[in-house]
Amino acid sequence: MKNRKLVLAKRPDPTVDRGLFRLEEIELSPLKEGQFLVRNLFLSVDPAMRGWVADMPSYIPPVALGEVMRSFAVGEVVESRHPDYVTGDMLYGRFGWQELAVSDGADVERKVDPQAAPLAANLHVLGMTGATAWFGLTEIGNPQSGETVVVSTAAGAVGSMVGQIAKARGCRTVGITGSNDKARRCREEFGYDAVINYKACQGEDLSSGLATACPKGVDVYFDNVSGPISDAVMGFFNVGARMTVCGVIGISPAHLSGPRVARTLLVKRARMQGFLIFDHMHRLSEAVESLLPLFKAGKLNYSEEIYEGLEQAPVGLENLLAGTNQGKVLVKL
Amino acid sequence: MKNRKLVLAKRPDPTVDRGLFRLEEIELSPLKEGQFLVRNLFLSVDPAMRGWVADMPSYIPPVALGEVMRSFAVGEVVESRHPDYVTGDMLYGRFGWQELAVSDGADVERKVDPQAAPLAANLHVLGMTGATAWFGLTEIGNPQSGETVVVSTAAGAVGSMVGQIAKARGCRTVGITGSNDKARRCREEFGYDAVINYKACQGEDLSSGLATACPKGVDVYFDNVSGPISDAVMGFFNVGARMTVCGVIGISPAHLSGPRVARTLLVKRARMQGFLIFDHMHRLSEAVESLLPLFKAGKLNYSEEIYEGLEQAPVGLENLLAGTNQGKVLVKL
Repeated sequence: MKNRKLVLAKRPDPTVDRGLFRLEEIELSPLKEGQFLVRNLFLSVDPAMRGWVADMPSYIPPVALGEVMRSFAVGEVVESRHPDYVTGDMLYGRFGWQELAVSDGADVERKVDPQAAPLAANLHVLGMTGATAWFGLTEIGNPQSGETVVVSTAAGAVGSMVGQIAKARGCRTVGITGSNDKARRCREEFGYDAVINYKACQGEDLSSGLATACPKGVDVYFDNVSGPISDAVMGFFNVGARMTVCGVIGISPAHLSGPRVARTLLVKRARMQGFLIFDHMHRLSEAVESLLPLFKAGKLNYSEEIYEGLEQAPVGLENLLAGTNQGKVLVKL
Repeated sequence: MKNRKLVLAKRPDPTVDRGLFRLEEIELSPLKEGQFLVRNLFLSVDPAMRGWVADMPSYIPPVALGEVMRSFAVGEVVESRHPDYVTGDMLYGRFGWQELAVSDGADVERKVDPQAAPLAANLHVLGMTGATAWFGLTEIGNPQSGETVVVSTAAGAVGSMVGQIAKARGCRTVGITGSNDKARRCREEFGYDAVINYKACQGEDLSSGLATACPKGVDVYFDNVSGPISDAVMGFFNVGARMTVCGVIGISPAHLSGPRVARTLLVKRARMQGFLIFDHMHRLSEAVESLLPLFKAGKLNYSEEIYEGLEQAPVGLENLLAGTNQGKVLVKL
């Protein structure tokens, strides 16, 4: 059987664009005992991929040159020589940017119930994205009713979930985002109490925007960017503030350095903690079970930007990293 | 009855030196109902005083100009019109840099047992210093046997306690200090497994010293300085590292900015948390009870640098902030 896959052809220098990937077509060997074949239906495109393709120290080794691009996917078992997986099983796993994946089960995150929610939702609100928001917000941020929760990349896949979970917990939610259109979606779709378009205000303006949006200061900050945006938010920390460091996409070469945070953390007895969903993937079902009631109650709005066909995955990634996407970027095969 | 006290005469500009204080002699009014009179026996001199005399945002309001200098002290009740305090009671409290203090009990931290330990010890190893080390290390750092614990200002009042508590818990302890003499004391008196004199090595040298001293990386970092020393230590964080931010004396005007820590915290899923003993003073007795067995077993070595007479307190502070002191700075009245 023929498989088509996207492999990493070169490293970013420094831009991550479609040119880094190469389409390959190969003939698959017959399945061995203990293996099964997954036909991917939806592929995920994630901001973390910027890190996965770069050859620098990170939480997992980079994708090797010539290797299929690492990616989450939802797929269907179409052939099996494994006792735990039968034809027709729907799976969520790390199946990569390819049409078919040969698996021994090690890259399966969980079986998916196609009745509980649309299939693609398992790649975001009921998948890694939802679990990231759930554990990163509830276990590190631990927001209490009435507290103020600030979210950077507030309209993003993770950010929009964080905002909605915090809102459902009775918090005042304040989103920071990068366009007027995203700001509108933050208010209308994700229910933020206040939204700031940081690109429409620089430096002091961001701070005055935060002062207006957070009259009682900031208790929880779910940060996906770091950099100057975070510098501004930290200036409004209340005593005992909790900050989840979930992404650092705002640390550009121009902002490798910044104001030291130690004095703020000390004076505010605040906590800043790195969060990586990979440490919690064994608890994925726990997060999904916690999120399903909110999902079914219509409290987890989301948008999808769906690209059609394997070849479009690098385009989706390029647009995602450029910030021009509208919602979770997916590829439908 | 006459009282002599040191009041804050001016703000640092920017140096904190003896010139900031003025000796005043005043006549005390007779005690009112509910008051008692404490004769201070030992006054404390602490690094935190640098912050208390400066008019900048901090965890407590600055000492007002013309006000008695804020300070912990151990004193004896010499007269009382308060039902809970009788003549002869020994107290640990915020009695200030003065010979006599009129109190209504609000500034008392705890009654001291003069049999349990030398009186002055209640101002450091069995006082706020010990409690700072105890709570900051055990509750934020939570060191486990076999882990590596790094301490900055390792020979200081707090640092030396942290090192010894960690050592008693079976950790590998690594001290960073600023002179060969202090380094020697770290090894001989405080039992550190490895010591680095950061003034004898700059930049890369500090990192290579840490690489040698921490062959298994850093699990817990009790930081009293921030600045370039912390930048170097954080480069050796293990996954799940915990950092107590207890002091920021290394953030000089030249180092207000520094490398952003967010990426390290994210990649290492590490935690950085500000700690202020004032949040925990209501649990002071709990810390003292936890420390007493170690104290009685001779596992909490300490040195005192005792100045004689109220007038010497500002000299002691000057020397403490210059780093020329040998151990806990106290004033004996």
